[in-house]
Formats: sequence, structure tokens, C-alpha cells
Amino acid sequence: MDDVRFAVLGTGGIGRRTLEVSQYKDSLRAVAACDRNGVAVDHGGLDVPELLDATEGNIASGPQDGPGDDLATDGGAATAGVKQHGDEAGIVASEQGRPTETPIDDVIAESDAIDAVLVALPNLEHDFIPRVAERFAEAAYEGVLVDVLKRSRVIGMLDDREAKLKESGITFVCGAGATPGFLTGAAALAAQSFVDVEEVEIWWGVGLKSGYEDNRGTVREDIAHLDGYDIETAREMSDDEIEALIEEHDGVLEFHDMEHADDVLLERAGICDAEDVHVGGVLDVRSDEKPTTTTVSVTGTTFDGETGTNTFQLDDVTSMEANVNGPALGYLKAGVRNNRAGHYGVFGPADLMPGF
Amino acid sequence: MDDVRFAVLGTGGIGRRTLEVSQYKDSLRAVAACDRNGVAVDHGGLDVPELLDATEGNIASGPQDGPGDDLATDGGAATAGVKQHGDEAGIVASEQGRPTETPIDDVIAESDAIDAVLVALPNLEHDFIPRVAERFAEAAYEGVLVDVLKRSRVIGMLDDREAKLKESGITFVCGAGATPGFLTGAAALAAQSFVDVEEVEIWWGVGLKSGYEDNRGTVREDIAHLDGYDIETAREMSDDEIEALIEEHDGVLEFHDMEHADDVLLERAGICDAEDVHVGGVLDVRSDEKPTTTTVSVTGTTFDGETGTNTFQLDDVTSMEANVNGPALGYLKAGVRNNRAGHYGVFGPADLMPGF
Repeated sequence: MDDVRFAVLGTGGIGRRTLEVSQYKDSLRAVAACDRNGVAVDHGGLDVPELLDATEGNIASGPQDGPGDDLATDGGAATAGVKQHGDEAGIVASEQGRPTETPIDDVIAESDAIDAVLVALPNLEHDFIPRVAERFAEAAYEGVLVDVLKRSRVIGMLDDREAKLKESGITFVCGAGATPGFLTGAAALAAQSFVDVEEVEIWWGVGLKSGYEDNRGTVREDIAHLDGYDIETAREMSDDEIEALIEEHDGVLEFHDMEHADDVLLERAGICDAEDVHVGGVLDVRSDEKPTTTTVSVTGTTFDGETGTNTFQLDDVTSMEANVNGPALGYLKAGVRNNRAGHYGVFGPADLMPGF
Repeated sequence: MDDVRFAVLGTGGIGRRTLEVSQYKDSLRAVAACDRNGVAVDHGGLDVPELLDATEGNIASGPQDGPGDDLATDGGAATAGVKQHGDEAGIVASEQGRPTETPIDDVIAESDAIDAVLVALPNLEHDFIPRVAERFAEAAYEGVLVDVLKRSRVIGMLDDREAKLKESGITFVCGAGATPGFLTGAAALAAQSFVDVEEVEIWWGVGLKSGYEDNRGTVREDIAHLDGYDIETAREMSDDEIEALIEEHDGVLEFHDMEHADDVLLERAGICDAEDVHVGGVLDVRSDEKPTTTTVSVTGTTFDGETGTNTFQLDDVTSMEANVNGPALGYLKAGVRNNRAGHYGVFGPADLMPGF
């Protein structure tokens, strides 16, 4: 496969780390990046170390930056917008950057020479990223867009725009981070022993001590998944109420039957019915060690009538960041292969896996 | 994706089971099958149950059918040629079959309307399947060929013919069974947490009691992997010597550092160096239960400097047959996607996985 020239929208945690990780592969060339106030473009390849140095420490924190993506297992508020400390912070602080009031449009203007764009923006409103995709389509972009969100409803909003994306020649890979991305990909792989999949259980562990302050918005969103809470009640809680709740749980929150995009994505890939997918996990805000091992269990029946469970486990030492960025770039490259083959529209990670 | 019209060369265990498993997916349509003496073609779709009934019990056994593919974990001698019990056995016994002296050529003659061909023939000589591929290329076949072999040297022989395959428009997916197929695919997936993979360990368990008589050739080949043996010494052993060796090991043979294609395939997919791949396993010829759990362990370093091991495990109840046929069809479909995208040449299973 030829080189992949990619751009990153947003230089929060995921955007920055994607740039960082891409340096390990010669076949990936970062050519553009933007944040709220600046853009950097070099079609010959950005000087990634310089850009990372210049943008370091500009990551947003706190719920004031938006309603907080429910991204606990995907890097949390690290995807939130870059909080600029003065006009000269963020990308504009880089030698390669220049200030702009239209950073996304500036990248779109260069998109003829960009194969893939990782959209690592805070999804401030549910339809923000779908609307960004629409802007690329309106500019007749022919290439790949990738997000690492995990909200089922965003997928529906992308589907609503699928005709436009197809017409433009866009391959949109949604949810390509750790979960649903990495873990539904593993589920799709593990399902191949079976002719009928009965259940997929996705169980994650995240330790967030050092990232707690930066992820308060995320934690608030996660609380909405606890028994007796929903998005509205969680949003209305004061910070003190949230602290009290966390105290009550000794810093460890356990989630069951979360509404993740995993179910929708596995159903559309033909692996199993959405209702047979169960997602839960344990979040520890007082330790960086994972409180439980991230495990994907796929239970099914073989053609010869046996019922069994295949499993995929991530080592506890692999951070959620590591498990977001490798897969995101992997799916980005798989998206490019599909785009070059003329496969346009909206794809989940499991759609890009071999499967029968 | 549109329907995939596929053919099966060989109706031994793997060929038959692939036909059987394909019935679970509407998107797969079996249109041709052949064995040594017969061919069945129906572009509207074969009547698979009738064909399976007619060919049942015609599976070859014993080392006399060839030098025995070293396919213990892939279905063993089940891939060996169909042993015909009289002229009317095998495909010709089916209402859909007709006798032929040129079964492969007969399928090639129909290949304009065939998207993919599973080559489930006994690889009687190392270059037999590569030569079959060449015959398809000489007929200007544009489509997918899949094998489930696991010999590194066959891959080299395919590579030698890659220019011819590309010119014809053939996408050849090699080693697409349980191992290397399923397990190297899992390794490629698991590797995505890491920027550097230090080791891939593939460890399989196979229980072969009920299949032992049918897999004597395979067991002989496996013996070549034991310490102090090689292919030549194993071939020269008498049946009594083999029985004595098995007796000495109480029916359980343990293998380390096997020469499988896994290493070559993971290196070509860019996952790690071939020398960092270790393959071993335990074969129990006196029990159908797996003597050890098939496990893929991928050890690597994350971008943030942690070293860990991700693991993929198959349930002990999943038979090697189940773990061959689902992945084989999965890679066949992935091959078709690639073929339609104009990606021609020789591919390993891990090449078809998302990966950065």
C-alpha cells in the first residue's frame, strides 16, 4: 500500500498521541493539524516532534469545555478542545502553525492532498462531528474520515448523511478507538469459530488517578450509566454531589449494560443482534492501575453444535491511550484501502474485519 | 458487499465443511465443487445438502494418500484427497455431479462466473497448489484463490509466481485456516496496542482421538517437529516405530518452535520479525479433548513505554474444524473485497487485517 497522508482535527490528547504514534510507521505521513486557533499544513510531512513540543500542556480540562464525551475508556476528556493559554498557545505556538479563525475549513481547503482525516474534536453537540463530515462532503472531499466516539446516536446521524458522504467519495469509519473500535474488532475476529453468536460481553477496566482532574466531565457522563441515574440527572448534579457519590463508592464505579455503540456496530457487521451485546466495566478514579482486566468474550455455537466462549484480553499495563491510538491508525489505514477501492459510506470497525 | 460466488476444489473434510458452513450466510453462494473424478457446477447455487449427503464418508484416510499435510491444527488429513469407493462415489454420486478426467480444468472453464475458489486439495507435492494457481492465471482468471496450508515454503513458491497472478488479476490468500490464518489474524489485531512487538507466541491444543486413524500421515509429519527428528527421519519411520514413539509419550506429543508459516506471514504483514514468532502446541491422539488451550500471546511495548502481553484464547470446545472453516470463509470474503478493489498478488491473513 502506498503512503497514507493524514490530517488531525484537534490536538487534544487523542490528536496529539495519534501524531506521536504515527511516527513509528514510515507509511503514515502527517500533513495537517489544527486546533481552535491555528492550523499547520505541510504536504511534505509535518515536523511532528516540533509540533508536539509546541502544543504540549495545552490540553483542556474540566467540564467547562463541553458536555464531556462519554469517552472514559477512549481517553476521556483528552479529546476535549485545546484550551488556549493566550493567543500564542497551541498550534500557533509551533513554527509550522499559523493563526486562523477557520481551522477546519483551512484543512478542508487542503484536502485534495489528504487521504484520511482523524476527527479528534470534542463532540460538543451530538451532531457536531456528523456536521463536520457534511462540510467535507460539501467540499467534494474524496477520502477517509475517522472518529473515535462511542455514542450510538452519532452513528445514526452519520447514517442519515450517508448519501451525501457516498456522493462525495467519503469512507467514514466511526468509533475507531479502544471501544467500540478495538474491542468490537476483536469480537468480530473471535466470532469466526461460530456459526451463531449468542452473546458478546465487553468488559473494560480503566484506572484514572492521574487523569481524574482532566476527566471530570467524562466521569459525570459515566455516572449517567449507573443504576438510578440518567444523562439528565447526572448533568444536574453539583460537583460536590459527584464527589460524594464517588466517595460513597470508594472511588470505584462499576457499570453494567452501558449504552455503547458496540451493540449497533456488531449488529451492522452481521456478528449478532444488538441486544446480545453487553458492555460494562470498572472505573477507578483513585488508582492508575486497571481495577479489572479488559476482556472481550464471544459466546457462540460452532457448526458442529458445541457452545463455547472465545476471549480476547488486553494486558492491564496497556493504557487506554495505547489502546485508542494504535487501533485508530489501523482503522484509518484500513479505511484508506477501502476508500481507494471505491467503498464509500459509513463503516464501523467490525465492518473492516475479515468475517464470513 | 454483493454476493460471493465460490467454488471448492476438493471435497475432503475442509472442502465439505466449508460448503456446510457457507449455508449459514446468505451472502455466500456455492456454485462449483470438484473431487478427483467428478465436478458439479450450478451458477444459480448448488444444492449443498444433496451434495454433502452424496459425498459423505468418502474422506481419505491413512498416509497412503500422500505425504500427509502437516495440518494437525488445521483439520489434518481431512484435507487429503477423496478416496473413491468405486466409480460412483464422491461428487459423481450426487445428482448434480458428472464424471470428468479434468476436474480442475472444468472449474477453471467456469471461472468467469466465480468470485473465489477455496483450494482444499491435498498438497501432494509442495508446489502442487502453486501450480494450480498458475493454471488459473494461465486461463486469465480474475478472482480469489484461498488455501489453508501452513508451510512456509509454499508461500515462497506463490511469491515466485506473484507476477503471473497479478497479471491475471488473482488475489491469493494463503494459509487462511486456523493456523496460521485465524491465529495470525488475532496476533495482528492484538499487536495494535503496541508500537513495537517483541514476541508472538502461538500455542495450540488438538485432541485427535476420534480422528487419529484418519490423521496418521499428519501425526507422522508432526513428529518431524519433535526434538531429534526431522522430515526425513520421520518419513523413514515404520508404523510400528511411530506407534512405539506415541506409546512412549502416552499419546501426547508436545511441540516447540515449529516451523510454521506464521512467522513469515507476520513478518510480511509488518507485525514483527519472523524470528520473534514462536509456534508450538500439544497433540493428544488418545482424547478428543484439547490437552491445552489454544492461545495467542502478543508481547510488545506501548507508545508510553509499558511492556505487556495481550492474549487471544479459543474455547477448548471449539474443534479445529470450526476454527478452520469460519476463518477460511472470512478470509475468502475479505479476499473478494480486495480483489474487487484491484489488489492482486499473494496475501497472508494478517495482511487483510486492519493494522497501522
